[in-house]
Amino acid sequence: MVNKEWSVPKIVQHDERRIEIVNATWRIIARGGVERATMREIAAEAGFANGALKPYFPTKDDLLAFAFQHVFCRTNERIAIATEGRRGLTALVALCREVLPLDEDRVNEARIVVPYWQNAMTHPDRARFHEEALGQWRAAIGQYLLEARDDGDIAAGLTDEAITEHLITLMIGAQILAALNGSDIPDARLRRRFEEQLDTYLELLRPSR
Amino acid sequence: MVNKEWSVPKIVQHDERRIEIVNATWRIIARGGVERATMREIAAEAGFANGALKPYFPTKDDLLAFAFQHVFCRTNERIAIATEGRRGLTALVALCREVLPLDEDRVNEARIVVPYWQNAMTHPDRARFHEEALGQWRAAIGQYLLEARDDGDIAAGLTDEAITEHLITLMIGAQILAALNGSDIPDARLRRRFEEQLDTYLELLRPSR
Repeated sequence: MVNKEWSVPKIVQHDERRIEIVNATWRIIARGGVERATMREIAAEAGFANGALKPYFPTKDDLLAFAFQHVFCRTNERIAIATEGRRGLTALVALCREVLPLDEDRVNEARIVVPYWQNAMTHPDRARFHEEALGQWRAAIGQYLLEARDDGDIAAGLTDEAITEHLITLMIGAQILAALNGSDIPDARLRRRFEEQLDTYLELLRPSR
Repeated sequence: MVNKEWSVPKIVQHDERRIEIVNATWRIIARGGVERATMREIAAEAGFANGALKPYFPTKDDLLAFAFQHVFCRTNERIAIATEGRRGLTALVALCREVLPLDEDRVNEARIVVPYWQNAMTHPDRARFHEEALGQWRAAIGQYLLEARDDGDIAAGLTDEAITEHLITLMIGAQILAALNGSDIPDARLRRRFEEQLDTYLELLRPSR
């Protein structure tokens, strides 16, 4: 019988090494895309011997799944900090700004999320994890919208659910557009575009003056 | 020197075979995802000998690039039919409905587009092709919005450019959500959600009664 108590410290140590590996993966993906990120390349970048990643991530798929979870945790940590002590529209804007690809770090996060999406198309458990992640954001957005209506900051005839779906879909679409950037628009200008999209969308919801 | 006149019929024939191959790819991706769609599997599905795809598509990447172009052409053909003789808001709705994943065919198209996006992250020429495709939609949407304002169907204080960006980002985000469907929501219900998103967004733009 496995002694669960004993295995805890080992798992914690594993998790630290895993995050090192994920950060190495990230740097490689940012430089050359997910196709460049072979297990051999990642091992080299993280300072592991070739083959030494196996105990942490048996396959590249497992690594991507963990990387996505890690991105999601990081985003949620940033959201927690940005929304602390805030409510209503201010908290809503803070949440959306942490998810939107508005700086280089968050564009790199989008570059991790896009391959995860492809992968999740054939791994229902991963698609479900993604959906649960979105569910947490939907719940938070719903709460902030309720408060924003109380504060008189939102007057649109739409249901809060409809507004929530718009915001979720806009945030997901922005990840794709930022990760690709197939235009000649400088990255900073493109990022500003997503900021404007959020601002102008919220403008549609405001009470008319 | 290559005689260009002579090579034309050959190219046309090539294109027909290519579309057969793309349709086979599509069926495999719809059944088992892009990872299942190896060159060997695709050859078998399309009734080609193993290795016989090479003259048409040297690599799976080339095949995916062509498949995306084909999806884009099909969508544009549907848009041309759906918008014929229409203008303003009616034409705008017709365009968006042809892009949104509102039926099984269009969800399958989304399943082709998601791997293309990942691929385009490291192939700037493909990201550029995608951007050009979006540029055509942006131009058409801009024209319809102008007409819709003339018709008094839109009263929002937002610029047409801002509205166009919202619609583009919503349509792209919907592709991801449809291709993944990580929820327990039946596909038909999920598709209805995208229809509602379009309706409710346009509601925000209408003159208040």
